[in-house]
Amino acid sequence: MYRTHTNGQLRATDINKKVTLAGWVQKTRDKGFMVWVDLRDRYGITQLIFDAERTPKAMMETASQLGREFVIQVTGTVIERESKNPNMPTGDIEILVSEISVLNKSLTPPFTIEDSTDGGEDLRMKYRYLDIRRTPVRNNLVFRHKVTMAVRNYLSEKDFVEVETPYLIKSTPEGARDFVVPSRMNEGQFYALPQSPQTFKQLLMVGGMDKYFQIVKCFRDEDLRADRQPEFTQIDCEMAFIEQEDILNTFEGLTRHLLKEINGVEVGEFPRMQYDDAMRLYGNDKPDIRFGMEFGELNSVAQHKDFSIFNKAELVVGIAVPGGNSYTRKEIDKLTDWVKRPQVGALGMVYCRVNEDGSYKSSVDKFYDQEDLAKWAEVTGAEKGDLICVLSGDTNKVRAQLSALRMELAERMGLRKAGEFAPLWVVDFPLLELDEDTGHYHAMHHPFTSPKPGQLELLGTDPGAVKANAYDLVLNGNEIGGGSIRIHDKKTQAVMLKHLGFSEEEAKAQFGFLMDAFEYGAPPHGGIAFGLDRLVAILGGQETIRDFIAFPKNNSGRDVMIDAPSPLDKEQLEELHLKVEL
Amino acid sequence: MYRTHTNGQLRATDINKKVTLAGWVQKTRDKGFMVWVDLRDRYGITQLIFDAERTPKAMMETASQLGREFVIQVTGTVIERESKNPNMPTGDIEILVSEISVLNKSLTPPFTIEDSTDGGEDLRMKYRYLDIRRTPVRNNLVFRHKVTMAVRNYLSEKDFVEVETPYLIKSTPEGARDFVVPSRMNEGQFYALPQSPQTFKQLLMVGGMDKYFQIVKCFRDEDLRADRQPEFTQIDCEMAFIEQEDILNTFEGLTRHLLKEINGVEVGEFPRMQYDDAMRLYGNDKPDIRFGMEFGELNSVAQHKDFSIFNKAELVVGIAVPGGNSYTRKEIDKLTDWVKRPQVGALGMVYCRVNEDGSYKSSVDKFYDQEDLAKWAEVTGAEKGDLICVLSGDTNKVRAQLSALRMELAERMGLRKAGEFAPLWVVDFPLLELDEDTGHYHAMHHPFTSPKPGQLELLGTDPGAVKANAYDLVLNGNEIGGGSIRIHDKKTQAVMLKHLGFSEEEAKAQFGFLMDAFEYGAPPHGGIAFGLDRLVAILGGQETIRDFIAFPKNNSGRDVMIDAPSPLDKEQLEELHLKVEL
Repeated sequence: MYRTHTNGQLRATDINKKVTLAGWVQKTRDKGFMVWVDLRDRYGITQLIFDAERTPKAMMETASQLGREFVIQVTGTVIERESKNPNMPTGDIEILVSEISVLNKSLTPPFTIEDSTDGGEDLRMKYRYLDIRRTPVRNNLVFRHKVTMAVRNYLSEKDFVEVETPYLIKSTPEGARDFVVPSRMNEGQFYALPQSPQTFKQLLMVGGMDKYFQIVKCFRDEDLRADRQPEFTQIDCEMAFIEQEDILNTFEGLTRHLLKEINGVEVGEFPRMQYDDAMRLYGNDKPDIRFGMEFGELNSVAQHKDFSIFNKAELVVGIAVPGGNSYTRKEIDKLTDWVKRPQVGALGMVYCRVNEDGSYKSSVDKFYDQEDLAKWAEVTGAEKGDLICVLSGDTNKVRAQLSALRMELAERMGLRKAGEFAPLWVVDFPLLELDEDTGHYHAMHHPFTSPKPGQLELLGTDPGAVKANAYDLVLNGNEIGGGSIRIHDKKTQAVMLKHLGFSEEEAKAQFGFLMDAFEYGAPPHGGIAFGLDRLVAILGGQETIRDFIAFPKNNSGRDVMIDAPSPLDKEQLEELHLKVEL
Repeated sequence: MYRTHTNGQLRATDINKKVTLAGWVQKTRDKGFMVWVDLRDRYGITQLIFDAERTPKAMMETASQLGREFVIQVTGTVIERESKNPNMPTGDIEILVSEISVLNKSLTPPFTIEDSTDGGEDLRMKYRYLDIRRTPVRNNLVFRHKVTMAVRNYLSEKDFVEVETPYLIKSTPEGARDFVVPSRMNEGQFYALPQSPQTFKQLLMVGGMDKYFQIVKCFRDEDLRADRQPEFTQIDCEMAFIEQEDILNTFEGLTRHLLKEINGVEVGEFPRMQYDDAMRLYGNDKPDIRFGMEFGELNSVAQHKDFSIFNKAELVVGIAVPGGNSYTRKEIDKLTDWVKRPQVGALGMVYCRVNEDGSYKSSVDKFYDQEDLAKWAEVTGAEKGDLICVLSGDTNKVRAQLSALRMELAERMGLRKAGEFAPLWVVDFPLLELDEDTGHYHAMHHPFTSPKPGQLELLGTDPGAVKANAYDLVLNGNEIGGGSIRIHDKKTQAVMLKHLGFSEEEAKAQFGFLMDAFEYGAPPHGGIAFGLDRLVAILGGQETIRDFIAFPKNNSGRDVMIDAPSPLDKEQLEELHLKVEL
């Protein structure tokens, strides 16, 4: 036994107890005749005291030589502190040390182990084991554990069974790139790591498991964007004998449970929004509805004059910025520069001030009179003191640009409030999405998503118009979950794969086992998957998923702490019958 | 809503309710004027009834055409059964169907979906989704879920935090072979899949997480033996500021909790046995102590006569087989043949009958008199009516052979009783193990295991004698968990790696990050890992881990259902800068 108590445990009621503690030296204060040590572990900090009157000289010396992050064990008596610290749970007491033993020394850590550290991202990643000693990082990992326990217990209560699906599966050139694993025993052949357990969970439904979930690692070999990880964790769920409504209710229940259990927040029934409405009103399929600033489409009130930029645009669309009339001309110019940055990509921005006296002043007064501008204000909902920002161009692009502006302004105005949670179901997604580069349609969700009843026929004539039984759960402007009702008959699945460009042979080679399974009594089924990393970050009131992953990889997919990936031995490569060709 | 109730739910108290059910047709009985259908789902079976008097003709026809495993939905009224079935929870009622809809048809399944199926292993694996529909297989998966929930809730209650460690890590040519994953973004470099999260859990202890666990997939590219899987699941645990005693107590608590929660069995304090004693008394480091038949070493009482086979043997060792004197000469010959099979490898077997009158009759009466044989009986604990079986040879080999015989006889005699649980800690394992092929020592547990205090010095002179702070938890003759107190200082770790044959450069390249971490205040720590697949099988009273894995691989590491692994596209290989060379 290295300790009788942890460092977060002792209180005034423990005074006079003899205790043994162990932990890390957070800091020491050495006044010569008196040495105080803050002893830290996962559970808290307890103050140790050594004083020349009561402590043997040799021990005083040991105490004064303790360095930051030394690991020590002490035995002593709990005494009342002279100057109590009401900000610390253990702030009423300290330990008068009678025995000390240094369990391990420490080099000076490369950054301070404090809530606010002086270490940069790179250094903290290289020494992640030291970073984890910092309270905020450790708390994030404990928080993640609490979330996963709450998820598991909730779903388990609801008769869901967690089933482990395999990690060494089959490569399918669908969606993102697979990570692959050469098989030594099956020469020249490869396993793939799952991008998700999609087909397996569907097979579990065919197998009668009825309600499945799994908290599971998934893998995507993508060119990494900021805050993407090649390995990530999903809460993966599937149910049989259900309709979309059952799924929405079940997982609305889970999400409401988490918000209550984890955040202490009660939320009402989740609103639902059509995908088309989300795009029209927010330019985005995952709108943050904690604040308004809905889009107003201005084509009908802005394309009747000689302003050719608007007249030739597919879409003219604006938002009212609350109180935005207070912006100086310079500030508005800066905003215009912001939307013109390559990351946003607008060609320009038209604005219209709504003055306190009800008059309008726009950047296009040459073309539009007060009556015109009054209509703009009406459509965008602008009131006195607001600023209307208007963008124009191709519908998809201009919506994305105005959505970026809306989020940026909300951020600046503090409308994206931490601690406020606004969940939203977005439903009726399109089945297919046009890849503008290739001109081909691909599955917006995945190839197993069922089209809305009666729309299968549209696939041949107007594929972009087909709606899917697909839904996303959005929280504060982030997609935290997405799913669909699946196809469960071979014929429909075959039609779907054909429209996605699979030849019959390819379909059979890659998904034959699933289509075969559909012939043996597949029940209607559907499901959802939550991105756990993102969900935990949002519940934790933060944006960066990396802060909630114990050992994340950097943007090149490297683990800089262990220095992976790395070259293989020649022997290893030979055993795998592989040759590297750079 | 496809159903108002499941098929395991309705009772006599529900009579007269109008209900909707959905599920699979287990079987139909068609008497022409009356059709009964057993409707099955995960939760049970409910009987449906259609009769010509009350059911419209078209529906009678639909009912009589239902095939096995058709997926149907019915609405009807709960009525009392005429002939009740007390063996079924729903046996008091049946459903008089008023609406029926066939949700999906089924081809005739390739084997019967019954508790005892006519399908062979290969067929059941190819159609695993149908195999999972069978109650025993489904129950095993639900059982596994119950075990993991019990583990997670118990450890979480005890302040353990489940932390996810990465799957894409670094290849270390230690232990078994790694599965590797080529990195596209880091050309020519590879990740490895973890054989265990060993180094990461140690880093979490350095990082102050204090108590960690994880239920996690691990990977080993081994030449597969029967009932081994290339991917398997561990309950991985680690604690800081602990001694061996703390670990044993904590995980004895977990195991006792599982036996009680899952099996309803109360077990007392787990006995502990020295590794050396386990080898001496059972010839095995994972003895099944549900029965006796302890080894008796006979060197001192069998090497004083002219029997040269015994005289030149390193070890002469026997067991008393209870009641074995009843074996005929032919049966004993068969037993001799059994130990001489190549899988066991004994050169022969000497036996000695203990007759009911107290006299002895041995196969070596030429060399040993009654007085000699009486000593054999004394040493092996043989009583009247027993049979003493004696093997001789090299200590390690002969122990393994006699252990195999002991287990085989116990199996035949029904001494390995299902439902009886005999846990056992085996402690004080050797630190190193001699590889007889290469003449090199390697770590018996792993290179991070600490030697017993004061024994580090022996490494140079008598490496085989060094004992480790290592322990195994054994249940009914199976190792269900194993662990150790770890080295937590750089110097000791360096000495250890040197003795395992790592050059300084190799040690730094492979374990530098861990050794660096030890320099920044690593606390004393240790842990244990349980093999979940095996644990679940044993708690479930079965031997085959494959029966508790949803989608297992066969002995060639193939998933025959999805047909993986498989060759890669040329483009995929090129992107990875790889060439296959067969």
